[in-house]
Amino acid sequence: MKLVTYSRQGKEQLAFLIDNKLYNTNTANAALPSTMMELLKDWEAKVDIARGTEADIKSGKINIESIAFETATILAPVPNPTSCRDGYAFRQHVAAARRNRKVDMIAEFDQYPIFYFTNHNAIQGPGEIPCMPDHFQKLDFELEAAVVLCKKGRNIKAEEADQYIAGYMIMNDMSARTLQMEEMLLNLGPAKGKDFSTVIGPILVTPDELEAYKVPAKPNHVGNNYNLGMKCWVNGVLVSEGNVADMDWTFAEIVERCAYGADILPGDVIGSGTVGTGCFLELNGTGLLNDPNYKVQWLQPGDVVEMEIDGLGKLKNTIVAENTDWSILKIKKMPA
Amino acid sequence: MKLVTYSRQGKEQLAFLIDNKLYNTNTANAALPSTMMELLKDWEAKVDIARGTEADIKSGKINIESIAFETATILAPVPNPTSCRDGYAFRQHVAAARRNRKVDMIAEFDQYPIFYFTNHNAIQGPGEIPCMPDHFQKLDFELEAAVVLCKKGRNIKAEEADQYIAGYMIMNDMSARTLQMEEMLLNLGPAKGKDFSTVIGPILVTPDELEAYKVPAKPNHVGNNYNLGMKCWVNGVLVSEGNVADMDWTFAEIVERCAYGADILPGDVIGSGTVGTGCFLELNGTGLLNDPNYKVQWLQPGDVVEMEIDGLGKLKNTIVAENTDWSILKIKKMPA
Repeated sequence: MKLVTYSRQGKEQLAFLIDNKLYNTNTANAALPSTMMELLKDWEAKVDIARGTEADIKSGKINIESIAFETATILAPVPNPTSCRDGYAFRQHVAAARRNRKVDMIAEFDQYPIFYFTNHNAIQGPGEIPCMPDHFQKLDFELEAAVVLCKKGRNIKAEEADQYIAGYMIMNDMSARTLQMEEMLLNLGPAKGKDFSTVIGPILVTPDELEAYKVPAKPNHVGNNYNLGMKCWVNGVLVSEGNVADMDWTFAEIVERCAYGADILPGDVIGSGTVGTGCFLELNGTGLLNDPNYKVQWLQPGDVVEMEIDGLGKLKNTIVAENTDWSILKIKKMPA
Repeated sequence: MKLVTYSRQGKEQLAFLIDNKLYNTNTANAALPSTMMELLKDWEAKVDIARGTEADIKSGKINIESIAFETATILAPVPNPTSCRDGYAFRQHVAAARRNRKVDMIAEFDQYPIFYFTNHNAIQGPGEIPCMPDHFQKLDFELEAAVVLCKKGRNIKAEEADQYIAGYMIMNDMSARTLQMEEMLLNLGPAKGKDFSTVIGPILVTPDELEAYKVPAKPNHVGNNYNLGMKCWVNGVLVSEGNVADMDWTFAEIVERCAYGADILPGDVIGSGTVGTGCFLELNGTGLLNDPNYKVQWLQPGDVVEMEIDGLGKLKNTIVAENTDWSILKIKKMPA
């Protein structure tokens, strides 16, 4: 299934995406909920009903009104996730970032699939990304894939963890690099540098739709893996290219770690971490390393960021500047 | 007001705490909600009604059944927070930790009040803290104060930020130091080392109750500050002593930073960060630095952790070992 949440009369509405048209789930079948979160919370009881309903729409057995995907106000597929974690699964991204900083690759990367918590209340879908002046100090995108979970669990082995995944989405983990680098000096990781916007969508795609793309996990790794090309354009210029199959840590392994001694919940969103070449921070570093005349680039007001992952659609956002000059960077309150 | 959430017939119930007795809010006044989150979301409309109702109970004008605080199953005052951030407000803790690691104090500490996001779905109240084998690799408490917010906001100056605080609580930010130190090598901050339990409670105390404790913020700082002694005992032995007034960054300043270009929401919990001497990690470092015969201590199964902050009550938890030998530490999946 391809599932979309859109805004209908000011409320979120869940819909099937079929041939570029949206069909409201609960109009198609009164046994289905009208929001993604309700479906995720009742996934095991409802997912087969949803699949059957989708088949009946495709076959013409259910004949209801639809609206064109292009004319709808598309929201994040999961507009209010229960939480948002971001992983660190692509070795190439980590290795390139470290090479650019002239430090060796870190052995621990290959030993455990770390993650951090980011602001799940700043999840958004396609459209405008409002940014403050400090965000424009090295404003960046991050090209990632993400999953959302559909089952409560705790202490789950990687071998069973794919069952907890409802589906896959594109993720753009927006990053304000100056804020991020400033706070990371104090060793608590990125927070303020990434709390203003994390974009997911536009579609949630269930794993059955991706069967044809399945490839083995990397050697010694466990879990589903998919050969899905990833691309990012800024103002129509292709800047990043990667593949979901290059994830060294699988989502199943990340879920295993998340669930160790802690509940995972329906509606939890987990990002893959940035694919190799998938952000200006890495591109600028590599560019400068190879060419002293390389022109450093960051996102500017009005820039259009488009991301595409095979099978998962295309995610488009526009960067918008808030009308203020307020800055919290380097406020320097040193005691008198 | 002193507000408590307890378990009543398997559901959370909000109550006034008066003279060690619990009075259900909605029994006392049908205009009041039965849960903390409902009250927080409707704070401006309901807080005066709640205060009036509390006064009427105290004066005997409202005469309803009560239950003894000691006999109730006390939950976290905010059992399902909207999010949980933890700050880094106490200079002494940061300076001591760095001294123990033989590195200089970092100037950036005094320049901006950083925070990170932790697992709001692992918030709990008094009682048992179930821990996995990896958590027992250097299991630690952290003595902190915390606030919960009662108003949606964005781009708020510190001067106005105290209005967004519903009240104050004790926080114990449980920490598994080996997991934490392992993941922090990869620079994304603490996540897995702290995602299994963050304890808050047992009482939420509104600011009016703390007026008598008010003291000025540190020089050059803005916002409410309170002279509240903080203590932690492990198995009855006093191990930590501090004071909320030693916060260098005020909660108002932390809220200002949180709300820069991002929504803050009713139900958001924010911790102060650890008070100086407020965890075994710091105590062990300082102990070993001063005395090579110092005996390093960490929490063990069965240990009882009690925290007290003047005006905010006493928070008691027992450490419990899960019956498993499963470890995710150093799983070493190096590619073949």
